[in-house]
Order: sequence, then structure tokens, then C-alpha cells
Amino acid sequence: MIHVGFDIGGTNIKAGLVNEKGQIQIKRNVPFPRESVQACVDTLDNLIKDMLNEAKLTVKDIADIGIAVPGSIDPSWSIVVNAYNLGFHDVPLKAMVSERYPGIPVALANDANAAALAELYGGAFEGKKTAILLTLGTGVGGGIILNGKMFNGGRGNGVEIGHMTLAHKGKPCTCGNKGCFETYCAATALVKAGKEAFAQDPNGAIAKRAGGKIERVNAKTVVDCAKNGDPVAVAIFDEYIDCLAQGIASLADILDPEVVALGGGVSLAGDFLYEPLKKKVAEKNFFKVEYDVVPAVMGNDAGTIGAAMLVSNAK
Amino acid sequence: MIHVGFDIGGTNIKAGLVNEKGQIQIKRNVPFPRESVQACVDTLDNLIKDMLNEAKLTVKDIADIGIAVPGSIDPSWSIVVNAYNLGFHDVPLKAMVSERYPGIPVALANDANAAALAELYGGAFEGKKTAILLTLGTGVGGGIILNGKMFNGGRGNGVEIGHMTLAHKGKPCTCGNKGCFETYCAATALVKAGKEAFAQDPNGAIAKRAGGKIERVNAKTVVDCAKNGDPVAVAIFDEYIDCLAQGIASLADILDPEVVALGGGVSLAGDFLYEPLKKKVAEKNFFKVEYDVVPAVMGNDAGTIGAAMLVSNAK
Repeated sequence: MIHVGFDIGGTNIKAGLVNEKGQIQIKRNVPFPRESVQACVDTLDNLIKDMLNEAKLTVKDIADIGIAVPGSIDPSWSIVVNAYNLGFHDVPLKAMVSERYPGIPVALANDANAAALAELYGGAFEGKKTAILLTLGTGVGGGIILNGKMFNGGRGNGVEIGHMTLAHKGKPCTCGNKGCFETYCAATALVKAGKEAFAQDPNGAIAKRAGGKIERVNAKTVVDCAKNGDPVAVAIFDEYIDCLAQGIASLADILDPEVVALGGGVSLAGDFLYEPLKKKVAEKNFFKVEYDVVPAVMGNDAGTIGAAMLVSNAK
Repeated sequence: MIHVGFDIGGTNIKAGLVNEKGQIQIKRNVPFPRESVQACVDTLDNLIKDMLNEAKLTVKDIADIGIAVPGSIDPSWSIVVNAYNLGFHDVPLKAMVSERYPGIPVALANDANAAALAELYGGAFEGKKTAILLTLGTGVGGGIILNGKMFNGGRGNGVEIGHMTLAHKGKPCTCGNKGCFETYCAATALVKAGKEAFAQDPNGAIAKRAGGKIERVNAKTVVDCAKNGDPVAVAIFDEYIDCLAQGIASLADILDPEVVALGGGVSLAGDFLYEPLKKKVAEKNFFKVEYDVVPAVMGNDAGTIGAAMLVSNAK
């Protein structure tokens, strides 16, 4: 039996046939059809038929189908409540796909939650029961594994780690609240601080590394300058690590995870990030124990694999 | 079969024989013998024999034994790592009790975690799978129920909700960190603010209610003055509720609990507390949903009942 996984994004749909171990056997990457939900379902349908054909399998070989979307899902994993990048609002996607594949279980998930689940299958969470994925990007996404299963909130509302409070009455967040974890620890927080440093010193190391163009400052610019010892960049990166460590220590006080994995470009900074980060997490958590903080490893296939394993993991 | 529960405190040991439903059948309350750990184990042993005698039961009727202590427990629920109020450090309490009752399962737990577990049995958490207890006292204690079971951390280090960060670089906490939830939301935070208000205005409502004696200011003084409309007390209580709501909203973004129960004296403030608190939690959580926030109900028996149900709940 094979698991079908889809990772629907605003630009592309990734698809895969995935075995019991969570390994992709066959995969596809096609443009996301923006014209209608129906067109999207047609695309999913065609992708399944195409992949089965290549694999010399039939519909009877499908164990289940999982779909990851960049948005919120209802507690029964059936309806896409809001996925702004897709233009999906209250879309009964599970029912629409089930209609084409009667008798085959279908489930939906948020893509960040699916990515966390994927790490269980040969990734950073293999063999673990309690784990946290933090994706440091435009915001801070991620997911939680509890008791070896993807956790979607006790009431099914999901998990929004990026919006736990780091600084009460702190910096305003896009969600309307203040002081959310992601306002300090998203990659964009590093970019913002880097641009501010550029504006303050147009001849500084950050400005030079960005070729004198402020719009070219990204997280890597700041990390690279910090690695080179530029004191301004070092200060920015130290503060970033301090905030990230504080957030991870908070999560440790609540969940005491076996492992925390970081995703997103910043997570590739190597020992320069992980060594001081782990040291600070150990200092800041109540138990004063060292926590395992590692890079996420599933990369671009994470959404597809996590989606494919949704139904079987939930059993 | 009957479950034996002990709640060991620095002043008293509470004991109970508890049935399958978590109801206390027979209970005892005796002074905690400070002279030695051995004296404490003797006391537990005598309490068991005494209660069995009254219940006309024998050792063969004991299903299991649970012991709640005010301190930290090792991940195997066997050793009291540190319980300062008892003077217990690295005490193999499970083994010491098991020696007297061979073949009967024995487990230890932190008393706040045990209190959370107790709420599952006819209390605020009955029938729930995901729930959080916050005890607002000298600090903020509490426990987490996940999947219908007491959660002791993914690595067994425990749960320290009071030490998650509410305000990065905020007020210093007794734990050595800064800005911990409990520095803003323990009952002592209300007392401290009340005493500051007293000192600033020795003729104000708070000073009058405390009979002109600053050492008499307690959490109830502040709550009562706020209920009477004193603007200084109202401002203190509003700020307290704002911080508490922010912390609960953070927990909701992570765990999305079915219910949050509050323990401690402050939790008895009624609608005056719960109405504005629930409104603010609904505004501050990412999902913008209403969460059930209610008083804990198990009271003084919570530790005993939670201890008694430890072994059977963990199965």
C-alpha cells in the first residue's frame, strides 16, 4: 500500500507517492492552478493517476491521501478554513477529493504541522515522542509532536507557536497582538535589524556586504557579517539568539521536548548559531538541562511526506 | 481494589484510600515528621495500616500507591530529587516504600502535577483530554493533562508553567531568569502591587482595608478594593488580569486546551475575575476563540487524589 501526499503552495503543488517508512517513491511538482478550487482538485486527481501509472500501481494500492495547505484547517481535518495564498476560504477539500476516491481516507493539515510530522520519518524526530519544529522564515511557523503523533491542539484549532508571547506589550505583531515570539525570532526580524544598521551606517560592514543596496540585506547578510566579527552584526545576532533561546526555554518549561528542530534559511548557520543557542537554552530553562536543538532535515519534501503520513500517523 | 494516595507537605501528610472513580473513602491528616526520611516512611506505613484497618481491607486490596511531594521528581517517578520544604534531596522514596509493600506499584509526582491530575476525577477536567491547571499562589504552579493523562514533560523533567516567559528581560524571578509568568501572575504579584499602593497613599482604600497595617495587605485586600471600585485597586487588578490573560493565551496558542482551571485564593474572585479574563484570552489568542477558564474544584484533597490515581492514570 502507498500513501499519497500533496503540499499545495501558492506557486506550486508538490505531490508524492510515499511508502510506509515515509520515503518518497515518485514525486511531481506542477504549477498551482489559480483559476478555481475545482481546477486544483482536477490537478490533484491527474497527479495521482500519473504517479500511479509510473509506479505501475492502481487506485486499490492507495492506503490514504493527505493534503498540506498553507493555512488553517477545521478541527475535523476536512475543510480549509483560510489559506490566503491559495485564495481558499471554507473549502471542503476533503469531501471534494473523497468524491473522486471513494473509500480512501483523506485528511488535511496545515503545512507547518505536516513538516513537523515529516521529521518523524527519517528526519530530526526519528524515534522521538515529544518534539518541536520551529521554522524561522517570514514568521515563525512550526509544529509539535506529542506522544509520537502530530499535535493539532487539544480542541483542533491547531498550534501557533510563533504567536506565544515573548515580550508582553512588546513589538506589534501582524496578528494584532504584541510581543509575539515571531516578531523577535522570524528571519525577517534579522533582516529588519540589518536594514536599520545599514541605514545608520551606510559604510558599515552590513551595507558593504549588501553591495550598498539596502533592499539586498537578508538574514544571511547579517549572519555572514557576524561570522566575520563585525561588532554591529554580532550584536544583532546575539540579541536574536537571546530571544530565540528564551522562546525555546519557555517551550521547554512547558513541554520538555526530546528535540527541537529549526527550519528556514537561518537554521543553516551551523555551530555559529547552535552552540551559543544551546548554551543559552540550558541557562534559561527552569530545569537547567541541555536540550537538543538541531537543524530540520526534510527540506523541500517535508510538506509532501508529512501530508502522506497524516492518516496513518493519526491512527 | 483501592488506591492509596499521600500528599506530603512541609507541615502535614495527608493520606487517603481512593476508589476507582477518584473518590476518597477514608482520609488522614498527620504532622510531617521532620526528624528523618525513615520516620516519614514509617508514618506512611502506619497510615496505610490504619486506613486499611478502618476500611476492613488488607494489603491485598491495594491496587497501587502514589505519593505527591512539593518538589522535583526524577523521570522514572522514583526519586525525590529536591523537595526543600521536606528537606528531601535525592531520596529514593519509591524504593523505600516498595520495600514495605513488595509487588504493589508505587509512583511519585510533583504535588502541582498531582493536583492537575485530580481535576480529571470529578473535577474541572472531568471527561477532558487536554487541560491546564494554574495555581496562583506564592508562585504559579500547575500541571498539564494531555491525551487524558498527567503530562510530566517529554523527557520527564516535569512541567514548570510558571516559568515560561511572559516578558523577555522583564522583572527578575526567584528562579534566576527574568520576566517569568509567575513574577506577574502569582498571588504575591497582587500583594506586592497592593503594598506599593499602600506605601504611596497611606490614606487610600487599600491602606484602610488593611487596617492601616501594610503587612496585612493580601491578594483579597486588593481584589475587594477593586470590587468596591477603588481606582488604584482597579488598575492593579486590571493589569494583573491582562498579564494572566496573556499567559493563558500563550498556552492556548501552544496547547489549545479544552479547559484551563485556576487554583489558589485569587481563583475564588468569581465573575469579577473570570468575565474580563475570558474576554481578554479570547482577544489575545491567535485563533480568536473563547477558552473555558474556570476555578479548580478539588481543593485540599487534590494532592491526595492525584497521587492515588498516578499509577492507574499512567497506564
